[in-house]
Amino acid sequence: MRIIKLNEESKKNLIEDLLKRSPNQYEEYADKVTDIINQVKEKKDKALFDYTQKFDGAFINAGNIRVTQEEIEEAYQAVDSTLVEVIRRAKENILDYHGKQKQYSWFDSAPNGTILGQKVTPLESVGVYVPGGKAAYPSSVLMNVIPAKVAGVERIAMTTPPDKDGKVYPGTLVAAKEAGVTEIYKVGGAQAIAALAHGTQSIQKVDKIVGPGNIYVALAKKAVYGHVSIDSIAGPSEILVIADETANPRYIAADLLSQAEHDELASSILVTTSVELADKVSQEVDEFIKILSRKEIIVKSLDNFGYILLTDTIEESIEVANEIASEHLEIITKDPFHIMTKIKNAGAIFLGEYSSEPLGDYFAGPNHVLPTNGTAKFFSPLSVDDFIKKSSIISYSREALEPIHKDIITFANAERLTAHANSIAVRFEK
Amino acid sequence: MRIIKLNEESKKNLIEDLLKRSPNQYEEYADKVTDIINQVKEKKDKALFDYTQKFDGAFINAGNIRVTQEEIEEAYQAVDSTLVEVIRRAKENILDYHGKQKQYSWFDSAPNGTILGQKVTPLESVGVYVPGGKAAYPSSVLMNVIPAKVAGVERIAMTTPPDKDGKVYPGTLVAAKEAGVTEIYKVGGAQAIAALAHGTQSIQKVDKIVGPGNIYVALAKKAVYGHVSIDSIAGPSEILVIADETANPRYIAADLLSQAEHDELASSILVTTSVELADKVSQEVDEFIKILSRKEIIVKSLDNFGYILLTDTIEESIEVANEIASEHLEIITKDPFHIMTKIKNAGAIFLGEYSSEPLGDYFAGPNHVLPTNGTAKFFSPLSVDDFIKKSSIISYSREALEPIHKDIITFANAERLTAHANSIAVRFEK
Repeated sequence: MRIIKLNEESKKNLIEDLLKRSPNQYEEYADKVTDIINQVKEKKDKALFDYTQKFDGAFINAGNIRVTQEEIEEAYQAVDSTLVEVIRRAKENILDYHGKQKQYSWFDSAPNGTILGQKVTPLESVGVYVPGGKAAYPSSVLMNVIPAKVAGVERIAMTTPPDKDGKVYPGTLVAAKEAGVTEIYKVGGAQAIAALAHGTQSIQKVDKIVGPGNIYVALAKKAVYGHVSIDSIAGPSEILVIADETANPRYIAADLLSQAEHDELASSILVTTSVELADKVSQEVDEFIKILSRKEIIVKSLDNFGYILLTDTIEESIEVANEIASEHLEIITKDPFHIMTKIKNAGAIFLGEYSSEPLGDYFAGPNHVLPTNGTAKFFSPLSVDDFIKKSSIISYSREALEPIHKDIITFANAERLTAHANSIAVRFEK
Repeated sequence: MRIIKLNEESKKNLIEDLLKRSPNQYEEYADKVTDIINQVKEKKDKALFDYTQKFDGAFINAGNIRVTQEEIEEAYQAVDSTLVEVIRRAKENILDYHGKQKQYSWFDSAPNGTILGQKVTPLESVGVYVPGGKAAYPSSVLMNVIPAKVAGVERIAMTTPPDKDGKVYPGTLVAAKEAGVTEIYKVGGAQAIAALAHGTQSIQKVDKIVGPGNIYVALAKKAVYGHVSIDSIAGPSEILVIADETANPRYIAADLLSQAEHDELASSILVTTSVELADKVSQEVDEFIKILSRKEIIVKSLDNFGYILLTDTIEESIEVANEIASEHLEIITKDPFHIMTKIKNAGAIFLGEYSSEPLGDYFAGPNHVLPTNGTAKFFSPLSVDDFIKKSSIISYSREALEPIHKDIITFANAERLTAHANSIAVRFEK
């Protein structure tokens, strides 16, 4: 991996480099996606069946678009029982963690008859998109579905493209069943997003759509945003490790590589004050690459967006970490918890040498759907928050309104909204 | 107002009618907005000065784009001191209510060395857009700025278009000062949004942009979304009142009209089981219209989107209210609190005959920036939540990781992510 001394210029170049990973060549797909959405709005199920035949080579109709109980049972037979047990243990941890995110309705009252509050209500229905083929990750099913379940969403509809035989990847079905999905449909791509947003004969409309997907899925989600809600658009993954001379270079190398294997746009960055650590990590990376199965992707990812940054002070390391605002941040130093207090921007923060990033991807409990590409400055991990909405509660008695009613009339008149003023005045007319 | 018996057909027509209020003719503006954003990215301040001259007729330069302390003091002289006092009292209520929305970092630990948590951090910087001219509402400044202040946002930059003399509406400046804005710039339209999103010599980039605006502002916000965060795009306003025979028709009429005066796309709906109440409200509306200053807007709004819906049962009233999911919902019945328990979708819920909607617009404390046009099914009022972000915290000891490390390796290998498996395995190699 390249080792670079951090200074204003190298930092600027690096940050510009990372932002280049955002896909900008949307236009060529946008028209196709609009067309697919319009077709689904107009022809409904018929459009879903036609597109599934065209894009997935599978024959789907009203009789088989929904996954049956038998198909789910078959999936359990096809999946290694050890994996099923692991999925169940991971599920327990994810349920535990997300249970602590639950928000509750509250109110505050005063003896004059004032009641103010905030009512928390789960969304009624959610759509979860799950990619097909090689990108079908059971862990991702758990992470997208469980927060909705914890929030209290009643209807959780999953869509995923079938293979040519009209089958869904068994790991997806098992994870869906374990997580508590209520219905599963064999349809993928922009057509699935359109169906979830607008409804067809077979698939009822939902309130919000979550889950990762390819460029068509991402654009379709953006297009239906506002009509329904969506999670954020997933970007390329990244890890940043802050480490000092006390860190084990072999662990750091392995962690950087675990991110690099995702795809060629993934970014792995080590920031350290230790020249010796930098050199050792670089050597360990070279050693590991030889034995890893996804070597080609890793090499491209590291060549493009892998960096070892040398800083003069730990404060400088923290500052650049905050500027990059990475999806995953590992802190492997003498005193990781005090460094954590200075971190403003990161999706998930892993503290200490045994908290490697895949622990969070699969098992610890916090969500692995995290803000990418600098958006941790303003976005948060997927959470129970994403599956609730709030309503303000306002109740005043006559006793509470009387002493302030002239204030409201003054304010409304100052904004030239006289009917607003009238609605208060009428309650105190003689 | 038209009185309609609610049935499946009338409900369907009504809901389709309401959704027609979403502006769909975006295309003609979209290119102009893209062009403005690109010009600001390229020419920075220079573009802001040129557009302000072109669109607002005002000469702005690096020396006067930022509002000075003197200008703020002048604004206080220009604004009625009674209004300043009212603004201060409203501010206290808004601060109080939003203070209760604060979320705190938490963690949970187990004696084996597991620490999981969620860190809450305020956004570092926020941009607040405030329209100019007649649409400059001081109350809206308070509602957009105070939640950011409560969240702990350090930098709150406001932009607003100047009039031809290069001045900003004094009420805006006073409200901004009272609310705690840290800097104010004389620039409006898509160019202001572009400056807040990308930065210029005079205006530093922010993390999130909030506040209402015209179609150019709305499209510009949509265009920069992802690069920065935004609040939701404001739509046409609406009120729905659920009332029974115990309600005062005069109050209801006044409340329906307070919403209708906003603009011709605003919608005012009464849902009631009482034919007598329906008739009386309709008569009172006719009487009030004669004396209200915004009569023309009101008549058009009621003709287009005003309805009195008659239902057979209160349950049916509640059901249609949940389907419409209105921005403001008033419940004026014998037992409003128990009806509230059945409400799933509404921006703000006003309970009882003294809780009129303008009380919430100006004074009670809850935010008046609310989800419109059915989006209360999945969106929430603007709140402190909008100005924070969360990071997951994960820390495991060796003792905590050891018993589960094989589970993680199994899961990662099942997803064919061998470098993920390696990052766990390396910590337990002999």
